[in-house]
Amino acid sequence: MMRSVSRVLAPLVNGATRGFAAETFAARAGEPVQAINETNRGPSGIINVPTRLLMGPGPANAHPRVLAAQTLPLLGHMHPPFLKIMDEIQGGLRYLMQTDSKYTLMVSGTGHAGMEACIANLVEPGDKVMVGVSGIWGERVADMSRRFRGNVIELQAQLGSTLSYTTLKENLLQHKPAVLFLCQGESSTGTHQSLAGLSEICKQTNTLLLVDTVCSLGGVPLFADAWCVDAIYSGSQKCLSGPPGAAPLFFSQKAMDKMQRRKEVPATYNLDLNLIGDYWGWFGKRFYHHTGPVSTFYAMREAMALVAEEGLENMWRRHNEMHHQLWDGLKSLGLQPFVENDADRLSTVNTIKVPEGVDAMALIKNAMDKYDLEIAGGLGPTAGKVFRIGVMGFNAKPQNMALVVEAFKDGLKQQGKLKA
Amino acid sequence: MMRSVSRVLAPLVNGATRGFAAETFAARAGEPVQAINETNRGPSGIINVPTRLLMGPGPANAHPRVLAAQTLPLLGHMHPPFLKIMDEIQGGLRYLMQTDSKYTLMVSGTGHAGMEACIANLVEPGDKVMVGVSGIWGERVADMSRRFRGNVIELQAQLGSTLSYTTLKENLLQHKPAVLFLCQGESSTGTHQSLAGLSEICKQTNTLLLVDTVCSLGGVPLFADAWCVDAIYSGSQKCLSGPPGAAPLFFSQKAMDKMQRRKEVPATYNLDLNLIGDYWGWFGKRFYHHTGPVSTFYAMREAMALVAEEGLENMWRRHNEMHHQLWDGLKSLGLQPFVENDADRLSTVNTIKVPEGVDAMALIKNAMDKYDLEIAGGLGPTAGKVFRIGVMGFNAKPQNMALVVEAFKDGLKQQGKLKA
Repeated sequence: MMRSVSRVLAPLVNGATRGFAAETFAARAGEPVQAINETNRGPSGIINVPTRLLMGPGPANAHPRVLAAQTLPLLGHMHPPFLKIMDEIQGGLRYLMQTDSKYTLMVSGTGHAGMEACIANLVEPGDKVMVGVSGIWGERVADMSRRFRGNVIELQAQLGSTLSYTTLKENLLQHKPAVLFLCQGESSTGTHQSLAGLSEICKQTNTLLLVDTVCSLGGVPLFADAWCVDAIYSGSQKCLSGPPGAAPLFFSQKAMDKMQRRKEVPATYNLDLNLIGDYWGWFGKRFYHHTGPVSTFYAMREAMALVAEEGLENMWRRHNEMHHQLWDGLKSLGLQPFVENDADRLSTVNTIKVPEGVDAMALIKNAMDKYDLEIAGGLGPTAGKVFRIGVMGFNAKPQNMALVVEAFKDGLKQQGKLKA
Repeated sequence: MMRSVSRVLAPLVNGATRGFAAETFAARAGEPVQAINETNRGPSGIINVPTRLLMGPGPANAHPRVLAAQTLPLLGHMHPPFLKIMDEIQGGLRYLMQTDSKYTLMVSGTGHAGMEACIANLVEPGDKVMVGVSGIWGERVADMSRRFRGNVIELQAQLGSTLSYTTLKENLLQHKPAVLFLCQGESSTGTHQSLAGLSEICKQTNTLLLVDTVCSLGGVPLFADAWCVDAIYSGSQKCLSGPPGAAPLFFSQKAMDKMQRRKEVPATYNLDLNLIGDYWGWFGKRFYHHTGPVSTFYAMREAMALVAEEGLENMWRRHNEMHHQLWDGLKSLGLQPFVENDADRLSTVNTIKVPEGVDAMALIKNAMDKYDLEIAGGLGPTAGKVFRIGVMGFNAKPQNMALVVEAFKDGLKQQGKLKA
């Protein structure tokens, strides 16, 4: 399909009288229509994608039914049948997050857009933002909060563990921040931050509790209302078995009140939740704000249906069981968790210490070359120190745990590092 | 699949010893695991979407091959075969925009995200931003530019026409703005802004020329390099026959230099182009910034292949021919263009005057009910005054023009308004 020969178009006569080329192509008067540059013409042929089992920290493989929904014909972004699909997504998110709040939606963007939507709208210039840092997501939230002119206080957890209730309590009482950020599932370190007891203190200090659940939502318990969480963002491509490109959001009434009381609009129009909320019908009538990603929302409607059909209790149990099956296998090979304390260990993204003398990159490469299987390395503070295995969504099933263990076994064996 | 009965889980014993429920579901110590709220459980069943012909201002129907690509298995967002797909998209955009610039990519978001990426990165606090307003897109860019603390000067075009070379020249010379924004295709009014002659003045005033091509890219001529355009954003769901959810971007070296010389980082992390550029390999090595929308990028790779296969010259000609076929039919019914001057009229989004005494909503409803055909009303300054018909991408073909004309004929006939 590539052609290397340039086609020279008739040059356009300047001024009011337009030449042939302009008429033909609807160019405007005076705009020089000229030879088309064919250098970059491409790509050619049909797209071809290898089939891989994505057992890293995400994306996990999407459910085939979810992918199939993306072939359905597009609807207009304001057509009633599409608005109904958006309503179904909102309902599904309420169930998934265990809330009766009106304020759920999917951001038309990736998990990072969800994170930024929360920060940009909840943080006003000068607000104290206390950020729990147990890996790169805390670091990123701190960075974003500074960009939106928050006054950031970072609480650093020890690498591979989480922040204790006592530390959080002391700091909350001392600083009384407007927002407290915690990462429930920290995919860079494999830690699971407990939210126990925080709602009481946050009420006392008038602090909004913002929680990152990108890699944990649907995989581990979360009760947004009962735990008095004020804001949640998540990702579509982890435990929810969707493609990346949509970010679940939730806000409590208290968080919504703060957003509506803002002295100035957020710097971002694209993620201004008072306007996006209008598109999702938070305040009654629906108004155009942007064109939702129609295919991706079809996919996420199906992802929500899968959650409803399986049921949260079954989902949480399945993720936990697969996590244990994985570790039973890994421990039988002599591998050890990076997160030493059981109570800090995340079930959906698992960090595995790279044993002394093992070439992690070679093991990862072997798994991909031989089994089309993704095993991931570390990220940020864990780079070079760990392997990461996702136990998420459609991929959280016995055959995949077995293959991951097999791939580790094979990789260690090749390096003569298998403890018999 | 909906169940109304709540299941009460064993409550968790507080403290270090975790109860049965916590073990089963991997809840953290002290977090109250409780009855699951089944109220919002849903949605149920398989998604069902009506088939409609989307002849409004977009989304247009996506090409089936483009939609089909979205069923392919996900790849990791940093896997080499996925990075290759991103490279192919970049190449395709270079051809489409007629540039050899390194700096093309797709923003992981909708057209609004593309617009905001340009503003957030090109505009520094205090910069003079001259915004050509010929409809709602100029208004929106003005709003965004203020949010990012630009000093906005609006140039208002007369409704249904565009800004003249003389007006633009005089204002550029007077204000010497850092950025000039123009909307090549203004979908709210159906106008086509000429860019003729502007590069000379912009060079003189050291102004970056930023152009909205959301509904025009691929449909009308654009030569980014030859016309010395500095920045372009576009949409995926118009003339490119893709789903919404990705926004083509382009920057000249001059625009890139300004972004790299910024005194402070932009307020947005999510759309910080120095970081997103790293993901797309603008500066050599590739770094993780966010997880690209994998399925949507598959789709856009196919959309780029369709452009390359048809060829720009053929695409431009086809859009122009269909525009004329449409108007031949509409004029035979006595309908008149809202944009009176031929030279201002956009071929990809067509605005049609609502004739005196015609009930526009009834005509639109008839087209949808009888033909599953979308005819759109006005937006912003044209609300209630016009019908809007898109002639874009996969939909720009003779049978669709014929059906649109037929639907107008039928609608007018029903209202006794057909001029014989």
